[in-house]
Amino acid sequence: MPEKRYLLTPGPTPVPPEVLAALAEPIVHHRGPDFRRTYEQCLERLGQVCCTAHDVLLFTSSGTGAFESAVVNLVAPGERALVVSAGNFGERWASMVSAFGADLVHLRYSWGETPDPEDLRASLADAGGAKAVFLTHSETSTGVVADVQSLAAVAADAAALVVVDAVSSLGAIRLEPDAWRIDVTVSGSQKALMTPPGLAFTAVSPAALEASRHGGGTRFVFDWERTRAGQELLDAPFTPAVSLVKALNVALGMLLDEGLDAAFERHVRLGRACREGVKAMGLELFSPDEDRSAVVTAVRVPNGVDAAAMLLTLRDRLGVQLIGGQGELKGKVFRIGHIGWFDLFDLTTALAAVELVLADAGADIERGAAVSAALDAYSAGARV
Amino acid sequence: MPEKRYLLTPGPTPVPPEVLAALAEPIVHHRGPDFRRTYEQCLERLGQVCCTAHDVLLFTSSGTGAFESAVVNLVAPGERALVVSAGNFGERWASMVSAFGADLVHLRYSWGETPDPEDLRASLADAGGAKAVFLTHSETSTGVVADVQSLAAVAADAAALVVVDAVSSLGAIRLEPDAWRIDVTVSGSQKALMTPPGLAFTAVSPAALEASRHGGGTRFVFDWERTRAGQELLDAPFTPAVSLVKALNVALGMLLDEGLDAAFERHVRLGRACREGVKAMGLELFSPDEDRSAVVTAVRVPNGVDAAAMLLTLRDRLGVQLIGGQGELKGKVFRIGHIGWFDLFDLTTALAAVELVLADAGADIERGAAVSAALDAYSAGARV
Repeated sequence: MPEKRYLLTPGPTPVPPEVLAALAEPIVHHRGPDFRRTYEQCLERLGQVCCTAHDVLLFTSSGTGAFESAVVNLVAPGERALVVSAGNFGERWASMVSAFGADLVHLRYSWGETPDPEDLRASLADAGGAKAVFLTHSETSTGVVADVQSLAAVAADAAALVVVDAVSSLGAIRLEPDAWRIDVTVSGSQKALMTPPGLAFTAVSPAALEASRHGGGTRFVFDWERTRAGQELLDAPFTPAVSLVKALNVALGMLLDEGLDAAFERHVRLGRACREGVKAMGLELFSPDEDRSAVVTAVRVPNGVDAAAMLLTLRDRLGVQLIGGQGELKGKVFRIGHIGWFDLFDLTTALAAVELVLADAGADIERGAAVSAALDAYSAGARV
Repeated sequence: MPEKRYLLTPGPTPVPPEVLAALAEPIVHHRGPDFRRTYEQCLERLGQVCCTAHDVLLFTSSGTGAFESAVVNLVAPGERALVVSAGNFGERWASMVSAFGADLVHLRYSWGETPDPEDLRASLADAGGAKAVFLTHSETSTGVVADVQSLAAVAADAAALVVVDAVSSLGAIRLEPDAWRIDVTVSGSQKALMTPPGLAFTAVSPAALEASRHGGGTRFVFDWERTRAGQELLDAPFTPAVSLVKALNVALGMLLDEGLDAAFERHVRLGRACREGVKAMGLELFSPDEDRSAVVTAVRVPNGVDAAAMLLTLRDRLGVQLIGGQGELKGKVFRIGHIGWFDLFDLTTALAAVELVLADAGADIERGAAVSAALDAYSAGARV
């Protein structure tokens, strides 16, 4: 039998066949009417999924390109930028802000901690304010989802522009940029939006757009105003990845058909099912045991188990792709993703496979408990 | 019958079904062995197609992103950069170099002129040299293909780093960066490489890479050393567009199976067939009537014909997508692309459709001559 593969990572994530089929359609010209219709609909749907009435600027890029656009459009060399970090992607904000010559104020937590709005208030007061504050909604390296609503309120009160990395959270967890005073929301195609990697975007407030017009650093491809002006005429400034835009448009339609509230509830239930399954197996969670952590579940590697060997066995013997820890968590945790095109049985597959491999490796695992606990937790329904 | 569509533009270009099929394959993780094998093969094939023994750095981006990488890795604000321009894409080099704060020396020709190495020698001497010289191999807006071998020799003699935009020429026209003293070759997936837009790359000489390590402007996503270091471990620094990389790898395999020399000869014959057909119809060429102009044929719009209306009729009534003039050539020329997955019958389609529309519009067109002339010119074989 041809091998079946299970991609159960927090990105890239599985892509539905309808979306894959759109990728295989013949190429259309990016200035022709077929593409313009798709482009217009895709931008409009992105606005709905981003819960914003303002512009969403679409780039042909990995998610990091959209990060870069936020830095170079808002912060000039020498201007102060405050970064809150508690893991790999927060650290990326800090590296990037430094690379572009900003005066970095770094509110740095240990990996796995949850940022506290009061710490941010104190940091901003100590620093005498900042041009922009860079936050991470879902820290994919640790599984922590921050309370960006509270963090954004503190930053906005201090008159900073608020930038949020929502790469792995958008479409999975509620985020309301306009209501929560978030100026810039950064995300990409390859996580909860069920599309291959290659497209990234920033939802920008009028204040952020205005700030970029009169400030920021040097830029060209990632210039917001150039992109906004092109989008207004449905005439992208540079040849976009037409196939990926078509695919994203299909995927966004599927997400909106499900409904954002229903998708958020599904993700809460998936997260809960995953955590209950992990705990029932006798394993210890690294990520918080809370409904908000609905993107990825990070699990401590049991004593005596070689994480790398375990992940290779899962992948090469069982066809199940999970992912290990990044940076300082390498070897200490493994992660199960559950964003995007995921249902309960993706999690029972993940849990059953982990149980099998750990039991074979001689770990002290309570057999059969994980899948049952996941089924129960999922069926109990969400109390969102 | 479902409408048949003919995409006969110089980019995006038609994509073979084998390449489209690769796009529709299930997503693989970018750090897993399946993708690493594809990534390694794709990078190796890119080296072969770029005729270089050095690194080819692959970005998830439109072609302009690879342009930007060349500017920000080589030229610091205030450093002198000489741009040779004779059309839209040369002008883009100038805009970009200025946007990043370089001291621009602009050797600027009218659109449609062919740059002269002696002019470049004089400009470099007048300016007292430059850190880098930016050239355009195929100026897609005019159909002119420059003698970049001679231009590069002049720039290299003046100790400048030589950067060539080969977006629409790579894989269609001979280009030998290592032999011709070109330091940086910039190209993308969506032209002669028969892949959808979304990937771009730069082939970099050791001297260019070394210069970037100690100089250039601020950058992050487009930093060459970060990309090179990642590629060395087959571990891209940012999530690449895995589907497009798979597709590009298939397309590069098809191009190498044909053989670069055979592909170059095919493009010469296609260009000749297109020009002979256009002339036989009684139309006037805008692009040069020479074998090197094998990317796109620019044709003057006959007196009394509305170019925009003609192109709309071609597209909406006949399903044939050609493209008009850009910038100052808008309304004055139309263009027929013939790079990548093109054969003789794509050109007979283009020529027959143009004949039909112009005859219907009452233009004085010699009926039936174009297709015959194209067939004859193609069959006569190439004298490359």
